[in-house]
Amino acid sequence: MNPTAKNVTHTAGTRNKKLALTAAALAIAAAGTFGVVTANAATGTAATGAPAASTAPATATAASTGNLTTTTHLTVAAATHAAQAALDAAVKENQKVSVAVVDRDGNTLVTLRGDGAGPQSPESAVRKAYTAVSWNAPTSELAKRLAQAPNLKDIPGTLFLAGGAPVQAKGAPVAGVGVAGAPSGDLDEKFARAGVAVLNK
Amino acid sequence: MNPTAKNVTHTAGTRNKKLALTAAALAIAAAGTFGVVTANAATGTAATGAPAASTAPATATAASTGNLTTTTHLTVAAATHAAQAALDAAVKENQKVSVAVVDRDGNTLVTLRGDGAGPQSPESAVRKAYTAVSWNAPTSELAKRLAQAPNLKDIPGTLFLAGGAPVQAKGAPVAGVGVAGAPSGDLDEKFARAGVAVLNK
Amino acid sequence: MNPTAKNVTHTAGTRNKKLALTAAALAIAAAGTFGVVTANAATGTAATGAPAASTAPATATAASTGNLTTTTHLTVAAATHAAQAALDAAVKENQKVSVAVVDRDGNTLVTLRGDGAGPQSPESAVRKAYTAVSWNAPTSELAKRLAQAPNLKDIPGTLFLAGGAPVQAKGAPVAGVGVAGAPSGDLDEKFARAGVAVLNK
Amino acid sequence: MNPTAKNVTHTAGTRNKKLALTAAALAIAAAGTFGVVTANAATGTAATGAPAASTAPATATAASTGNLTTTTHLTVAAATHAAQAALDAAVKENQKVSVAVVDRDGNTLVTLRGDGAGPQSPESAVRKAYTAVSWNAPTSELAKRLAQAPNLKDIPGTLFLAGGAPVQAKGAPVAGVGVAGAPSGDLDEKFARAGVAVLNK
Amino acid sequence: MNPTAKNVTHTAGTRNKKLALTAAALAIAAAGTFGVVTANAATGTAATGAPAASTAPATATAASTGNLTTTTHLTVAAATHAAQAALDAAVKENQKVSVAVVDRDGNTLVTLRGDGAGPQSPESAVRKAYTAVSWNAPTSELAKRLAQAPNLKDIPGTLFLAGGAPVQAKGAPVAGVGVAGAPSGDLDEKFARAGVAVLNK
Amino acid sequence: MNPTAKNVTHTAGTRNKKLALTAAALAIAAAGTFGVVTANAATGTAATGAPAASTAPATATAASTGNLTTTTHLTVAAATHAAQAALDAAVKENQKVSVAVVDRDGNTLVTLRGDGAGPQSPESAVRKAYTAVSWNAPTSELAKRLAQAPNLKDIPGTLFLAGGAPVQAKGAPVAGVGVAGAPSGDLDEKFARAGVAVLNK
Amino acid sequence: MNPTAKNVTHTAGTRNKKLALTAAALAIAAAGTFGVVTANAATGTAATGAPAASTAPATATAASTGNLTTTTHLTVAAATHAAQAALDAAVKENQKVSVAVVDRDGNTLVTLRGDGAGPQSPESAVRKAYTAVSWNAPTSELAKRLAQAPNLKDIPGTLFLAGGAPVQAKGAPVAGVGVAGAPSGDLDEKFARAGVAVLNK
Amino acid sequence: MNPTAKNVTHTAGTRNKKLALTAAALAIAAAGTFGVVTANAATGTAATGAPAASTAPATATAASTGNLTTTTHLTVAAATHAAQAALDAAVKENQKVSVAVVDRDGNTLVTLRGDGAGPQSPESAVRKAYTAVSWNAPTSELAKRLAQAPNLKDIPGTLFLAGGAPVQAKGAPVAGVGVAGAPSGDLDEKFARAGVAVLNK
Repeated sequence: MNPTAKNVTHTAGTRNKKLALTAAALAIAAAGTFGVVTANAATGTAATGAPAASTAPATATAASTGNLTTTTHLTVAAATHAAQAALDAAVKENQKVSVAVVDRDGNTLVTLRGDGAGPQSPESAVRKAYTAVSWNAPTSELAKRLAQAPNLKDIPGTLFLAGGAPVQAKGAPVAGVGVAGAPSGDLDEKFARAGVAVLNK
Repeated sequence: MNPTAKNVTHTAGTRNKKLALTAAALAIAAAGTFGVVTANAATGTAATGAPAASTAPATATAASTGNLTTTTHLTVAAATHAAQAALDAAVKENQKVSVAVVDRDGNTLVTLRGDGAGPQSPESAVRKAYTAVSWNAPTSELAKRLAQAPNLKDIPGTLFLAGGAPVQAKGAPVAGVGVAGAPSGDLDEKFARAGVAVLNK
Repeated sequence: MNPTAKNVTHTAGTRNKKLALTAAALAIAAAGTFGVVTANAATGTAATGAPAASTAPATATAASTGNLTTTTHLTVAAATHAAQAALDAAVKENQKVSVAVVDRDGNTLVTLRGDGAGPQSPESAVRKAYTAVSWNAPTSELAKRLAQAPNLKDIPGTLFLAGGAPVQAKGAPVAGVGVAGAPSGDLDEKFARAGVAVLNK
Repeated sequence: MNPTAKNVTHTAGTRNKKLALTAAALAIAAAGTFGVVTANAATGTAATGAPAASTAPATATAASTGNLTTTTHLTVAAATHAAQAALDAAVKENQKVSVAVVDRDGNTLVTLRGDGAGPQSPESAVRKAYTAVSWNAPTSELAKRLAQAPNLKDIPGTLFLAGGAPVQAKGAPVAGVGVAGAPSGDLDEKFARAGVAVLNK
Repeated sequence: MNPTAKNVTHTAGTRNKKLALTAAALAIAAAGTFGVVTANAATGTAATGAPAASTAPATATAASTGNLTTTTHLTVAAATHAAQAALDAAVKENQKVSVAVVDRDGNTLVTLRGDGAGPQSPESAVRKAYTAVSWNAPTSELAKRLAQAPNLKDIPGTLFLAGGAPVQAKGAPVAGVGVAGAPSGDLDEKFARAGVAVLNK
Repeated sequence: MNPTAKNVTHTAGTRNKKLALTAAALAIAAAGTFGVVTANAATGTAATGAPAASTAPATATAASTGNLTTTTHLTVAAATHAAQAALDAAVKENQKVSVAVVDRDGNTLVTLRGDGAGPQSPESAVRKAYTAVSWNAPTSELAKRLAQAPNLKDIPGTLFLAGGAPVQAKGAPVAGVGVAGAPSGDLDEKFARAGVAVLNK
Repeated sequence: MNPTAKNVTHTAGTRNKKLALTAAALAIAAAGTFGVVTANAATGTAATGAPAASTAPATATAASTGNLTTTTHLTVAAATHAAQAALDAAVKENQKVSVAVVDRDGNTLVTLRGDGAGPQSPESAVRKAYTAVSWNAPTSELAKRLAQAPNLKDIPGTLFLAGGAPVQAKGAPVAGVGVAGAPSGDLDEKFARAGVAVLNK
Repeated sequence: MNPTAKNVTHTAGTRNKKLALTAAALAIAAAGTFGVVTANAATGTAATGAPAASTAPATATAASTGNLTTTTHLTVAAATHAAQAALDAAVKENQKVSVAVVDRDGNTLVTLRGDGAGPQSPESAVRKAYTAVSWNAPTSELAKRLAQAPNLKDIPGTLFLAGGAPVQAKGAPVAGVGVAGAPSGDLDEKFARAGVAVLNK
């Protein structure tokens, strides 16, 4: 699967081409529904399986391809797999932790509050994951960099404590895995890396 | 117990392929920098222009392609273009409004606080855009649907007032444009649609 | 004045018994750790496997059994299993949703942001789960009860939209499963019930 | 009462057994009520006193025992007793303080805003209690550990000032008592310990 | 321009009298303290027991009596007594509730999270108490008044559900007691009134 | 005026005496009103001017005097006078500042956003005032004390920057005046002291 | 691609003129200061009284006049005058209220928490003022308009209750005065209008 | 255009002059509108083009000129131009950043979330801009000043990291441009300065 191949070419040449619309019609709100159409643009085959174009309502406006770009994300299945692997690694060492996976846009994909983990751990895990994906580095590394730029840690949503590890695709960050609750941040980060590791198989 | 065992394999065929890593090295934090590597995964050519793989540090962990998906977004250039067009449409009719463009993940891409627009307008514009992209419909339509599901409007971040219009690609929502500040929501939405319209050229 | 004198003795018989302390020692903070001891009280065998009592530090203070009660929770494994089952049920019907599991104390155990689910769905799922476990009823039922007590929906953290289902043990609520993102709340709730169903096996 | 004894056996063997349901029926919402059933799972005798199983509605779904775990909490009576004792200890020394008791999940059980205590004291007391129970140590100890992990104090909800003391059962944290408002944190913590002390009788 | 010139003199007669200072000295911050002096102005005898005036530091500035007013509050002992009574009344009827007492300035004095009470109950109790003391009426009455002024319920911090009862002194509100968690607001309010009732003895 | 004289005697002897009720009746909600009765307990003569006791509704519950205490506050007139004086002192030196007065309970009494003052100044002024009244000392002093207890500054609502000054009555804090926006905190605090100074006349 | 190219020139004629710089130098941060220069652009004579241009640092960058616009505000003196007048009007009728003045950009200029006013009144006053200035109409009028656009009241920061009145200059809104705490919104609004009235003298 | 020329003379002499009202009538709310009149006071010619005074409703109240002042702002066109220039400068160096422009009152005028910029960058950009305009200095300078006043960075809304640059008019701050997301704050600030630079043409 390589859906991003053509989409990233947001060069001048294509920007003015009109998109051949395959706009799915807005669902008519049936009784008991509120008419959501949430098919993702990237999953084109599903959405265009129905001959929707001819029924496109007046409100459907499609952006031309020159205006579009794509970003790479973990599937929720992969994010769950990573989170579970991180949690399993902690449980194997009798550590009680919480785990989070955050995507490159800062949105939380998966959270797991481990049995017996401290109340501070779920939010800490989210912030470590957020921090790791924001700077594309393990939070143990980032914590060291505060020596140069100490106020970096004042950025909302971040936490500069070991326990976050970035997930990369072609060297760029696509997600972060964060773990919190073990007696040391180094342990937390070991488990986070265990979570990341299962994604490279 | 392994409750997720089968669930995570719904991209089964590809998940076990190892990705040929082209991981860009983590930048060594030079003096005065804090070592951010933010190349987006989708812009592969730029990131891989440098022969980075051989210098990949121990911390670089790449997700295999089976774990990845992509989502479609407006470029910031396109979002700015749409926002500006919506604002221009309002100014042309002597209306003072604010404009926002929000992507499918709910992240705000562009905001413009128009000259003389009311203080309530910037946040209203963001929420209308958010609402439009959430349900892939103009907020004037969505406001009507409250007759069926009145508590829908209690969802955090939403605003069920005319003035938001979705941007679609292949029928799926990729962004929302929201406008607020005109004497009626219908006017607001007219300007929002003007913003969306420039994206289909 | 001693207004609480009698009130605190409603567990009277047992309250004055001293607990035979098996208090685990506070871990000495080794280099690189910050000394967390997070063994849960309920997992007694593990904690008391070590002859900890004799090393209990001055700071360890144990509550006597008369002062203690227990609450029933889903394990994180069970909560993940339920969340995954709810998500799978939605994917099977080509619906893009987010899922959350919240415990009886209102703490979020698991969240899954489904592929392509709208930005409003993760928080909606949490709130539906929270609402279901708060009143021990499906949110579709609870939404109807607003006819009697319309301001119930103003309670912070709640959302009175179909899509939340309670998990019970001996008839009492122990968790809630919430789903959001499908075209109707009834669909959301169908998936939530599918999540709850796997817990009764 | 020793409700936790059997519940902690969430071993593999029991997980697949179906629970003999004694699910209390959902209360029919009488006029003027909104039909809450809040009997806690742990207080089984009360809930099962009524022959509820045969009237269990379709919406009642019980989790099997293998999916359940229990956590240990202070009763509200005990928490009130501890809070009152902490406050009394402060008043005896003419100190004006506020007191809080927080459980292991981070939920606040009891707060007392002492007569004449400063406006900053109630929230400080809550955060000290939260911090003590999160790391199972007095906050005076935890404040010292910041030398090793200074950013620990950036975790939301925490406060690394003396005045918080953990309550333990079998060595594991079940609650924290926090006191704030005295001229020194050491005094605050002395009063917090006085609160914890009454629980071991 | 001096627009406030006359306005501030509406306590004119007394405003220019100098207060005979009995200012307690600012405590010199001893090692290990941070020098808080929190003696409340109203508890004059205790504070002036020490011959503090002669040691008043340069930073001590006393307001003259004409600039001062007093407000009436429940003692924390009374507030705890009321909260406990409300909780006891609920327990007696096998209802699981949370209770709060809020003073006339909107500050929370006491909160009790009852055993087994739903997660929504603590905040609901606070808001009911806040609402009752704000309008000096039971919240069951106030909920009816929404027929006249429906948007009253949009005021931050309020909750227009039965369960809050005002505490009065000379007919004026000095506190509110709020209860939440019972199957009906009427029951909640019955318990709240039981809490208020013990204050009139 | 010395309204607190008798009220502070909340000793055992008086606590059981029933208060001779002079409870003002709850106002019947006339058309167009929502029936607020907000007469403060301390302003007894106004409230009891009407022969209210005989018309006291069932919902009126009075606390006995033993349950009551009083706290001392600045009148709003005095607080406005102080704020204006602080602002005038700044304007006289061509400084653009904002000013706030906060009472002992942490409630903001008066805020003035000075012409041309920076956007950060209003909230800074509130927090300085809050900090000064919380510890009954000028914030310039308090900032120095962070050397002993550095994490004190993590308490929510505080700001440890010069510019806040306490207002005292009998040595106890009753309010704080905060100023922000001048080129130095020392200047800010000079103006704050000028505000406090007018209250001692 | 340069989508903004033409759009930014709607002040075309003047935009390319260089401003004759009279940039005040950045103050050198003297010991004990942090070097704030807050002279407002509009108060030109004061700022340019010093021959600052020749000492302008490299960091001083002036916007050309074509890029600038001005907005009209109440002075803080006028806003205080209006707030005080509104409060006086309420006191004259024995009503206990809080008052706020908010400018056209939504920033709060002045708040006064009246003696004995309910805890809900300060924030209500701010929101009424905000609402009045946002739509340039009294909030009593705006509340009626909800019949047409009921969800307008969901816009953050607003409150659709009588008690807010706009202040206008040449027919355009420049501020709002809000009052809250009286038994009816109509009374609140009467006092707010009294505040506005003193500005037209 | 020099609209501020006369307005800044808020001297005593003019304060008592009644303004010759040219108050635009409140728009009658036509069907489908909610009657907003948002003409800015400064754009007098447009508003007074209509002979509105004779139709001024009873609710229209104009402030006299003595009560008014003006503040200088960037037009939204200029702010957009600056933001775009900052973003372009970053893109030219292959840096992925977000940009914000904030006015002197702290209101955000424009935000641009750059393609591929980290999730922490949009809020960081806003805060850098806010900080720069608050103290009228580049944030790289302000970060150095923390050596003198370290707690300055605790002021809400600020961020003391290089990347913010003030925009000045006559030496006074009128806006701030903030950039975040590049590998170093110095780079961020270089781009911010590029944004400011285009305003001086």
